Amino acid sequence: MSDITQLSEDDRTFLDSYLPQDACNAATNETSSSGLQQSHRVRASATEKHDLPFVTLTYASSLDSMIALAPGARTTLSGPKTKSMTHYLRLQYDAILIGAGTAATDDPGLNCRYPKATLNDQPRPVIVDPNRRWKGESKKAFRLAAESQGKAPWIVTRASDTSSLDPLLQIGGNYLKLEDDHPSSSDTAISWVAILRALKQRGINSVMIEGGATVINTLLSLPDLVDSIIITVAPTFLGQGGVAVSPAPKTENGQRINSAWLDKPSWRQFGNDVVLCGRLRR
Amino acid sequence: MSDITQLSEDDRTFLDSYLPQDACNAATNETSSSGLQQSHRVRASATEKHDLPFVTLTYASSLDSMIALAPGARTTLSGPKTKSMTHYLRLQYDAILIGAGTAATDDPGLNCRYPKATLNDQPRPVIVDPNRRWKGESKKAFRLAAESQGKAPWIVTRASDTSSLDPLLQIGGNYLKLEDDHPSSSDTAISWVAILRALKQRGINSVMIEGGATVINTLLSLPDLVDSIIITVAPTFLGQGGVAVSPAPKTENGQRINSAWLDKPSWRQFGNDVVLCGRLRR
Repeated sequence: MSDITQLSEDDRTFLDSYLPQDACNAATNETSSSGLQQSHRVRASATEKHDLPFVTLTYASSLDSMIALAPGARTTLSGPKTKSMTHYLRLQYDAILIGAGTAATDDPGLNCRYPKATLNDQPRPVIVDPNRRWKGESKKAFRLAAESQGKAPWIVTRASDTSSLDPLLQIGGNYLKLEDDHPSSSDTAISWVAILRALKQRGINSVMIEGGATVINTLLSLPDLVDSIIITVAPTFLGQGGVAVSPAPKTENGQRINSAWLDKPSWRQFGNDVVLCGRLRR
Repeated sequence: MSDITQLSEDDRTFLDSYLPQDACNAATNETSSSGLQQSHRVRASATEKHDLPFVTLTYASSLDSMIALAPGARTTLSGPKTKSMTHYLRLQYDAILIGAGTAATDDPGLNCRYPKATLNDQPRPVIVDPNRRWKGESKKAFRLAAESQGKAPWIVTRASDTSSLDPLLQIGGNYLKLEDDHPSSSDTAISWVAILRALKQRGINSVMIEGGATVINTLLSLPDLVDSIIITVAPTFLGQGGVAVSPAPKTENGQRINSAWLDKPSWRQFGNDVVLCGRLRR
């Protein structure tokens, strides 16, 4: 567990203004005996949307904007310092959200291993899995919840074939059953507004969305839903054929234009990596 | 011309150890009345290869590692500060090299507009154009050379159908006629070793290779030829379908591995962009 170390005050200050507002206060008030206090978070954004949580999109990529060497390949990109940053960030949010593909590929723990983090400090793991793709007997997030090292996951899905014997329910997790946004079409996606609203209704005031590429690429084109972006770039090239982060192309008057811009960008070297914080231009 | 401004001493110090050795000395010795002196540059690399110049690979990309919105589309990525950096860098090299595709698309000036740069300070523009793809009546680099605002280009090619009436020869430029490296195959590429050796034989001791994507992707896989890399990343996404920088995939024992690594990476924010300096791992 000792691979996760505390960030310096300068590192924390660099991140602060891109985090949910109350989290920043907690981060600068570390004298509490029980570690960082998790409190109700309020939305820092100027545009108030009371029915949606504060959303931060965060991921680590190579210089060629790849997050994995190949589909289904678990690939390490972050160095020790940006890995510690990820766990520091997880402490600041009520929930961590990932797509089912990433859950199936990486079998991530989705808990926070930042020094002194208590069970109460842990973020809620949320897996968006409309079609129940996340199979497999061994689920690290389930095990960690059973061992009280993380909160039990919530799974956002369209299906409702659950019984009281479901392992997820037995460890205290739950299903968020949402209606298909396009029930008559072949597109089985649930809208992001519906997902985020459902989380807010269940007391989640801040969400850190960690991947994978499909989720990130979609949200990069939805600036109204994303309050901040925190990207780690590692000084390596994964090479052609990897899993790329790149949003859908955008056109204006028949001409291609940039798909997304980050306003107020702020860059800082963490170990060998760089971290970019910014806000999507609306 | 006033869009190019002097870099601060801190910015120059950040870049120094990735530049040709003598250039660094020149950069810190700005008291000369004729601006920065261009002197003979020596290779800073530990591995001495006396028959090859010092090579720096440099380009600007979006966060999704694109250098243009579409093939043939001239796309602005660098902000004012990294644009000034590019002109500062051009002052440090004997030559700037680009591929014919970029020359045809961007019609770049390829001169140095850094404050106080003299004609003697100008880098030699080199266009690698094996199959004479760089056509068109208006060539900015030709005009600048005719107006003594830049040196006359050299064109690396396989063809030899030139006459004394050739506009390139009339402005003092020249052709470097190199043999096809694979004359019997359908691959018409000239090898990079041959190109760099030919430049060294003609007194070019340092080359800044600026693009385009084909040239960059090839050289990222040739770490023995590249002494340093200087990459600008702008906080924007160009989106899927753009022109991507990403080297060819690499495998080891049948498994995909990272295509390239940067050693001694150093990152610094320049305006809204970040600049990464490093060396390709050999």
